[in-house]
Amino acid sequence: MKKISIFDTTLRDGSQGAGISFSVEDKLKIASALDDFGVSYIEGGWPGSNPKDEEFFKLAKNKLKNSKLVAFSSTRRKNIKAKDDANINKIIGAGVKCACIFGKTWDFHVIHALNTTPAENLNMISDTISYLKSKNIEVVYDAEHFFDGYLNNPEYAVKTIETAIKAGAEIICLCETNGGMLPTDVQRIVKEIKEKFPYSKFGIHTHNDSGCATANSLIAVESGCEMVQGTINGLGERCGNANLCSIIPSLQLKRGYQCVSAKNLEKLTELSRYVYEIANLVPNDSLPYVGNNAFAHKAGIHVSAIEKNSKTYEHINPKKVGNERRILVSDLSGKSNIISKAGELQIGIDGKSEKIKEVIKAVKEKENQGYQYENADGSFFVLTKKIEKHCDNFFTLKGYRVIVEKNNNGKIISEATVKLDVNGREEHTVAEGDGPVNALDQCLRKALIKFYPEIKDVLLIDFKVRVINSNSDTAAPVRVLIESKDRKHTWGTIGVSENIIDASWQALADSVEYKLLKNKIENKK
Amino acid sequence: MKKISIFDTTLRDGSQGAGISFSVEDKLKIASALDDFGVSYIEGGWPGSNPKDEEFFKLAKNKLKNSKLVAFSSTRRKNIKAKDDANINKIIGAGVKCACIFGKTWDFHVIHALNTTPAENLNMISDTISYLKSKNIEVVYDAEHFFDGYLNNPEYAVKTIETAIKAGAEIICLCETNGGMLPTDVQRIVKEIKEKFPYSKFGIHTHNDSGCATANSLIAVESGCEMVQGTINGLGERCGNANLCSIIPSLQLKRGYQCVSAKNLEKLTELSRYVYEIANLVPNDSLPYVGNNAFAHKAGIHVSAIEKNSKTYEHINPKKVGNERRILVSDLSGKSNIISKAGELQIGIDGKSEKIKEVIKAVKEKENQGYQYENADGSFFVLTKKIEKHCDNFFTLKGYRVIVEKNNNGKIISEATVKLDVNGREEHTVAEGDGPVNALDQCLRKALIKFYPEIKDVLLIDFKVRVINSNSDTAAPVRVLIESKDRKHTWGTIGVSENIIDASWQALADSVEYKLLKNKIENKK
Repeated sequence: MKKISIFDTTLRDGSQGAGISFSVEDKLKIASALDDFGVSYIEGGWPGSNPKDEEFFKLAKNKLKNSKLVAFSSTRRKNIKAKDDANINKIIGAGVKCACIFGKTWDFHVIHALNTTPAENLNMISDTISYLKSKNIEVVYDAEHFFDGYLNNPEYAVKTIETAIKAGAEIICLCETNGGMLPTDVQRIVKEIKEKFPYSKFGIHTHNDSGCATANSLIAVESGCEMVQGTINGLGERCGNANLCSIIPSLQLKRGYQCVSAKNLEKLTELSRYVYEIANLVPNDSLPYVGNNAFAHKAGIHVSAIEKNSKTYEHINPKKVGNERRILVSDLSGKSNIISKAGELQIGIDGKSEKIKEVIKAVKEKENQGYQYENADGSFFVLTKKIEKHCDNFFTLKGYRVIVEKNNNGKIISEATVKLDVNGREEHTVAEGDGPVNALDQCLRKALIKFYPEIKDVLLIDFKVRVINSNSDTAAPVRVLIESKDRKHTWGTIGVSENIIDASWQALADSVEYKLLKNKIENKK
Repeated sequence: MKKISIFDTTLRDGSQGAGISFSVEDKLKIASALDDFGVSYIEGGWPGSNPKDEEFFKLAKNKLKNSKLVAFSSTRRKNIKAKDDANINKIIGAGVKCACIFGKTWDFHVIHALNTTPAENLNMISDTISYLKSKNIEVVYDAEHFFDGYLNNPEYAVKTIETAIKAGAEIICLCETNGGMLPTDVQRIVKEIKEKFPYSKFGIHTHNDSGCATANSLIAVESGCEMVQGTINGLGERCGNANLCSIIPSLQLKRGYQCVSAKNLEKLTELSRYVYEIANLVPNDSLPYVGNNAFAHKAGIHVSAIEKNSKTYEHINPKKVGNERRILVSDLSGKSNIISKAGELQIGIDGKSEKIKEVIKAVKEKENQGYQYENADGSFFVLTKKIEKHCDNFFTLKGYRVIVEKNNNGKIISEATVKLDVNGREEHTVAEGDGPVNALDQCLRKALIKFYPEIKDVLLIDFKVRVINSNSDTAAPVRVLIESKDRKHTWGTIGVSENIIDASWQALADSVEYKLLKNKIENKK
C-alpha cells in the first residue's frame, strides 16, 4: 500500500480563514489532536510573522508523539544572506526538525510583488534551502502560484523547482495558491512536472476557489504527488484550503493509499468536530464524510432502500470515518452511540438494561432543546448518573440574583447572590466578580467550599456562548459551554436557555457536580 | 462557443436537503428567479409524489419566459402499461413540454429494490419513454446509479442506456446517485460511454459525498456531456447536489462554454443569496464564486500584493459573478489592509494623511485589548469616524444596571435600566427582556426611539461570545460579536470586556451608532 504523507496546515494557512483567531492554547490543543490522529506533518505557524506563533513553538516543540512539527517561512529577503535573515533564523530558533519554505514560481510575482529580478529569486530559494539543510533541517519547498506560474512562463517555473531540488529540498509542494485551476489542468501539469523530475518527491497544496480543492488534490496524487497539504474542515482564507477530512478517506478507502491507520480514520469525524469547536465555528453539516448530514437520509424512497441494503444509497460505511447514518424523521441519538460514550466515560451502564432506555430518552429530550454532549462530557456524566440514581444531591438551588451596574465614572460592579439547600441547610451567600458569570461562580464556590473543600481545585478555563438559532434575535436560546479543570482532568459542561445567565448557571452547577461525583467515585475505589 | 444546457433541480432534488421545506409560493419565486437567470431547464417537482408539486405545476406552467419547465417521475410501475400508470399520467396532466424520467441502471437495484427482472426493467424504460414521446413530450432520461451500475455490470448498464435512446429520449443523463465517485472514474466512464454512443446527447448529475460533485460535473463536460444537472448553492440531500453556482462560472469563464449570458452571470451572487433567503438557511460564506468570503483577503502579505495587481491572488474578477472583494481587518494586517477597508466602506480617509496613522494606532491598541474587526465592519466604521471627528455624539452613556433573578419557582426575570444623555437631555429608562442582553437592547431602543425613529428598523440577528485568553478563568476578557440588519444592510459590531454585559453593551451601542451615522451620511447625499 503506497504511503501518502498528510501535511496539516490548519494552524497556519487554516488560521487565515475569516472569523478564525486561535490562541496559543487553542493551537496546542489542535496540534495534540492532530498528533493523536497521526498526520505526518503539523505546520504550526510562521515564527517570524508574530510572537504568538513563536510562543506556540516554544511550548509545542517536544510534545508530539507521531507527527513532525513544521515551521513556515518565506525564502530569505532579497539581497541579503539567509544566515542574516531574522525570519529564517527564527525557524532555527523554533527548534523544529522540518521547515516549510515558500518561494515565488511566477516571474510576474517576482517582478511585481517582490520587486526583484528572476535571478535573485532563484538565489533566494537556493540560499534559504541550503542554509536550513546545513542546520540539519528537513525542507518542504512550497512553490507558490506554481500552476499559474507554469502556465505563464513554464521555463522559469521549472527553473525554480530545479533550484529547490538542487539546494536539497526533500519535497517540492506544488501550490495552487489562487484556487482557480480545474482538475484537468492539475492532471496535465502534474504529469508534465513528474516526467521532468521523475526521481523527486512532490506534494500538492490547493485552495477551493473553484470548488475543486478536493478533486485537484486527489487527481494530483493519482498523477504522481506523494504529499497532500490541507486543513481540517477545509478551514482557510476565501473559500478555504483543501479539506483533509474529504481527501484522506477518499485516498484511503477508494484508492488504497495509506494516510493514517484504519483505526485512526475512525476518529476523523470526532477530529472534525473538535476543531470546529475550538475555532468556535458552527460546523458545516454538509461536509463529505464527517458532516452531521453526510449520511442523513430524508427521501422516503431512499430510507426504505437503505433498510433493504445500505450499499444502495451510501458510498461508504459511515463507521469507517466515525460518522453514523441518520434518518431525518426523528433526530435521535442512537443507542450504540450512547453506550459507547458511557463506556468511554467509565459510567458503566449495561447496554441491555432498562436504564439505557431512560438515558436515551433523556438525551433526546435535551438534544431537542439544543443541548449537545459532544463537548460536554461532564454534563453527560451528571445526567446519566442522575438517571442511575447514583448521584447524590450535593446541593439544590433555591434562587439567585445577578446585578451588573455601570456608573457615571465608568466603573462596573458585578454582584451575585445565591440561595442553596446543602444537606438540608440553607446557604445564602453573596460575592462580587469580574463579570456576572464570574460573580456567580465565586458565589457558588463560597456557598459550597465548607461542605466540599475539594472544589477549590476546580478552575474554569474556557467559556463559549453561541445563539442556537442564529436566524433570530437576542431572545433566541443560547448555548453556553464551559471547560473546567482540576489537577488531573479537564471536562466540559453545557447549559441552554434563552437567558445567558441561566445557561451559564447550568454549566457552572454541572461542572461542580461532576467534580464532586468523580471525587466520590475515586474515594470509594 | 459550445452551448451547455443547465438543468436546475433545486426545486426537486434540492428540496430533499435537511432543513429545507419549500412552500408552493417559495417554489414559484425560485422558478421565476431561475427563469430570469436563464437556465435551460427548471425541474419543478414530482407531480405523482405529492399534491404540493401538482399545485406548483398548475400555477407555473405558462409563466416561464426563458426556461423549460420539467416534471419528474420514475419509470412506470412493473407489470402494467405506461398509459395505465397514474404517476406517468400526472406528468401529462401537469402540462409540461419536458419530462425527466429516472430508471434503474444497476441490476442489483432492479432485483433488490424493485423486486423485478432485468428484462422487465428494460420494458419499463422503453414503454415509459415511448408513451411520453407519443404525447409530444421531450424526455430527459436520468440513469440512476449509472456509475455504480456500470462498474458492477457494464453490459446491463449499457443496455438500459441503449433502450432509453431507442425509445426516443432526447438526453441521457448519467446520474452519480451515491456521490462517491472520484473525478478520474467519471472521466474514464463518460469517455467510454461517449465512444459507444457518439451521436447521442448526454448529461451529468452528481452528488457531493466525496466533495467532488463540482469537479465530476466539469470533467464530465470535458469528456463529452452537454447538460449539467445541479442545484443553486448545492442544496440537496446528505452533502448536497452539484452546485451550479460553482459549475456555471468555471465552464463559462475558464473553459469557454456558453451556459447563460455574460450579463446574467453577473447576477449569480444575487441568485445564490436569494435562494438561501427563501430556503431560510444561513448562507455558506465560503462558497466558491458567490460566498461572502470568496474574495475576502486577510493576510497582510496578500493584501499589499492585491493592491498592486488583482490577478496575483484572485482567480477571476469578482464582478463577473456579481460578487465583490472584501478586505478583512485583522491582527495580521498592516496599513494597506486598513486603507482598503476604509475605501470599501466609503469612509474616505486619505492614505497619505496624518489621520490614517491615528486610525492604525487606534486599531492596533484595540487589537491588543482583544478587539478584532474582520467581522465587525460597523465598529470599525464608528471607530474611524470618531477619529475623523465626523462622528456626532448621538448619545452618551451615564450608567446602566442589569438584574437577572431566578426565584424558588424557577422563574427568571431580566431587567435593565439605562441612563443616557441625548442632546443634553437625560433619559432614564427601564425594560425587561428574555435575557440580560435582550433587556439592555430593549432599554437602549426605548430611550432613543423618540430622537431617532430610524432605529426601529434595526434587528439583531446573531450574537457570539468567546473568552479571548482561554488559559484563564471567567475573569478573562470576553469578546462579544453582534450582527445587526436593517432593510438594506447587515453589519457586525464588537465589544470586549472582562464583563460580558459591558462587552454586549459596547457592541449594542456601536450597532445603533453605525445605523445613525450611515443614515445621516445617506440623507446628506
